[in-house]
Amino acid sequence: MKKNNSKSSGGFLDRRSFIKTGASLLTALAAPSVLAGGDKGIKVPDAMLIPGAFDDEYGKPSGYEKAVKRLVMPNGNAAFTPLDRQRGIITPPGLHFGAHHSGIPTINPEEHELYIHGLTEKALRFTLEDLARYPHEGGVMFLECSGNTWLQATSGEQAPDKSCAELYGLVSGSEWLGVPVRLLLEEAGIKPGGKWVIVEGSDAGTHARSIPIEKLLDDAIIALYQNGERLRPAQGYPMRLFLPGWEGNMNVKWVRRMEVVEAPAFTKDESRAYTETLPDGSIEQFSFYMGVKSVITTPSGQQKLPAKGFYELNGLAWSGFGKISYVEVSDDDGKTWHKAQIHGPVLTKSLTRFTLPWQWSGNIARLQSRAVDEFGNRQPSHQEWKSKYLDGSYNHYNAIQTWEVAKDGGISNVF
Amino acid sequence: MKKNNSKSSGGFLDRRSFIKTGASLLTALAAPSVLAGGDKGIKVPDAMLIPGAFDDEYGKPSGYEKAVKRLVMPNGNAAFTPLDRQRGIITPPGLHFGAHHSGIPTINPEEHELYIHGLTEKALRFTLEDLARYPHEGGVMFLECSGNTWLQATSGEQAPDKSCAELYGLVSGSEWLGVPVRLLLEEAGIKPGGKWVIVEGSDAGTHARSIPIEKLLDDAIIALYQNGERLRPAQGYPMRLFLPGWEGNMNVKWVRRMEVVEAPAFTKDESRAYTETLPDGSIEQFSFYMGVKSVITTPSGQQKLPAKGFYELNGLAWSGFGKISYVEVSDDDGKTWHKAQIHGPVLTKSLTRFTLPWQWSGNIARLQSRAVDEFGNRQPSHQEWKSKYLDGSYNHYNAIQTWEVAKDGGISNVF
Repeated sequence: MKKNNSKSSGGFLDRRSFIKTGASLLTALAAPSVLAGGDKGIKVPDAMLIPGAFDDEYGKPSGYEKAVKRLVMPNGNAAFTPLDRQRGIITPPGLHFGAHHSGIPTINPEEHELYIHGLTEKALRFTLEDLARYPHEGGVMFLECSGNTWLQATSGEQAPDKSCAELYGLVSGSEWLGVPVRLLLEEAGIKPGGKWVIVEGSDAGTHARSIPIEKLLDDAIIALYQNGERLRPAQGYPMRLFLPGWEGNMNVKWVRRMEVVEAPAFTKDESRAYTETLPDGSIEQFSFYMGVKSVITTPSGQQKLPAKGFYELNGLAWSGFGKISYVEVSDDDGKTWHKAQIHGPVLTKSLTRFTLPWQWSGNIARLQSRAVDEFGNRQPSHQEWKSKYLDGSYNHYNAIQTWEVAKDGGISNVF
Repeated sequence: MKKNNSKSSGGFLDRRSFIKTGASLLTALAAPSVLAGGDKGIKVPDAMLIPGAFDDEYGKPSGYEKAVKRLVMPNGNAAFTPLDRQRGIITPPGLHFGAHHSGIPTINPEEHELYIHGLTEKALRFTLEDLARYPHEGGVMFLECSGNTWLQATSGEQAPDKSCAELYGLVSGSEWLGVPVRLLLEEAGIKPGGKWVIVEGSDAGTHARSIPIEKLLDDAIIALYQNGERLRPAQGYPMRLFLPGWEGNMNVKWVRRMEVVEAPAFTKDESRAYTETLPDGSIEQFSFYMGVKSVITTPSGQQKLPAKGFYELNGLAWSGFGKISYVEVSDDDGKTWHKAQIHGPVLTKSLTRFTLPWQWSGNIARLQSRAVDEFGNRQPSHQEWKSKYLDGSYNHYNAIQTWEVAKDGGISNVF
């Protein structure tokens, strides 16, 4: 790896020298306007001449931000977070990605019940009021659909001409809090032989997954809160299973039933769907962990750089195994790599923000990021990822993303 | 301080023994229903029999959560976060507190300009597009109105019969990101003698504060993002000054002008308002830092415990000086104190979540929390706080809160 250097041939600016030289560097690169005539150039806006609006009981974004919205698929099965408009590790609740197969049920929380039964000493029923009295655990964590970035996985030679949101928008970050599943299972009493739990949602498709009991006794929660408020309906209101770091569909929404069993049930959601096809044609099931992954969110696909000069590259990295250790960035198609600045807090199984100051020379540049987690897991190249699966398999795509900046500043997705 | 003990006379349950005994303890204290007839007691809800709803481009809370809203004052000047319904350190954007004197201006971001002028080498004008290219810094931090909890400060002998939201709801937590002010000031070039900056908003009241330049060169940002999306209009869209740990009104919303000057301007917002009256009748100005503070949010005022038994006490602590070191909780009017569990991440100038498992015996209990920050700052008692100011002064109230649980489970605010 090439060492960081403020005179990098690649256009990367050393973070430390940047901080030191600070303004002088920026002046040359991203200069604002100098006011002709000094103070006389200051305008008084209309907003200062009339009283403003009253506040709402539940606030909403500015009307000027209407373009910042989720991309809802025509069949309604998925809604993509506009990652290329997001900064930071928290996704606003209204923009959290959604994925579901039978629509979003409307559930009266006072009528909803969670059952724990099967190989247990007792069959138990929990209301929301019961759960509210239990200890709550959790934290800021990511959630990612196992099919996120499937368009990259299923493309042929030609990379699809899509935005960062369309390619990567099935991942979001929230503060998730709820009741540890271990307390509920211990209360029911697991009988000998209870090794898996079939977890079922209250949706019309009866989404169900078999979960190894070890995960449920570890860091799994029945999530009741997301970013300080009750879950949104699209996220499982009034309760969902949350399995830190594991593929989205296992985090069963509108959860109603947990049946302790000896062996997995091979539900449609773990046999027909949510499996991967290996090169020899065999099927990989129960691929729980979301691998280490990263993407530069700005600048990114279908955006356009307005001019040469200074930009801050912004991105997100995450790993279902734990914390991000470091992220490297390249602007020369991977010939040289430069450590990005990681912005804390660096949390386990959470989105992690990285940036790197960069000067665009006006020539073609290929921007890439690659993340490494605390267990040494690394992102594969697109070709390496493809070689692990049979053509057409698309879950768990986590290869290094390449954005190409053309001479006119236009940015596109390339392999 | 009394040591933690699982047989505490005060009803507190040691966190470690709780985790170990886990279920057995809970079974006795917060037991769910045992299903008569085992699996036969499981109901199939209507939601599973009909397809669910389509997803929205911008999601919203469940219709069953309509009661979770901000309390907007009749004059519209302030909107209180429902802290007693919040769990965690992130406030949902729609529920972030608001405080403003002339309503919320509607600002077209393409027309908004930020000026830096006065004792500078150059007078500069920044558009939103200019600022978007700069490095962004920030993190998860609290924001608190200096007048938060003023009802406690101005009450006589009798504590006001109010909820936690009404007393404490002018504090919220968000991930705030934006452009370091230091970069902008350095770019303008501060002339000798430039020691303060008058910062002015684009509201009809021309809210303005004088800020010491040291703070602006330290951790101040022009905030553009809140919890991943652009600021809400009530929070200063399209940009506000954010001064980590400093009183809310200095975090000038809809910021348009920063004038570097030699001495403070003594604006109405720092002479008529946002000052404190000391016992000798003199006025304390420029009281920047929000002191260390904490409150038990559930159970809290005007809530009612449904029955004896197990509860998790939930609360938030914060300090404008830095990180929270620890929080202690009492249920016997401060005779004995027990260390609460702090839930990470513990971030500087951020809300910090604490909990403690507690068993309510059914007798009168007085619940209190007291926080200590990394600089050893501690919360005063109500009487200690009152003795520091003349009667009627109300800013920067940070005394220990007392919630009294009556024999019927009703909870009220007491001194």
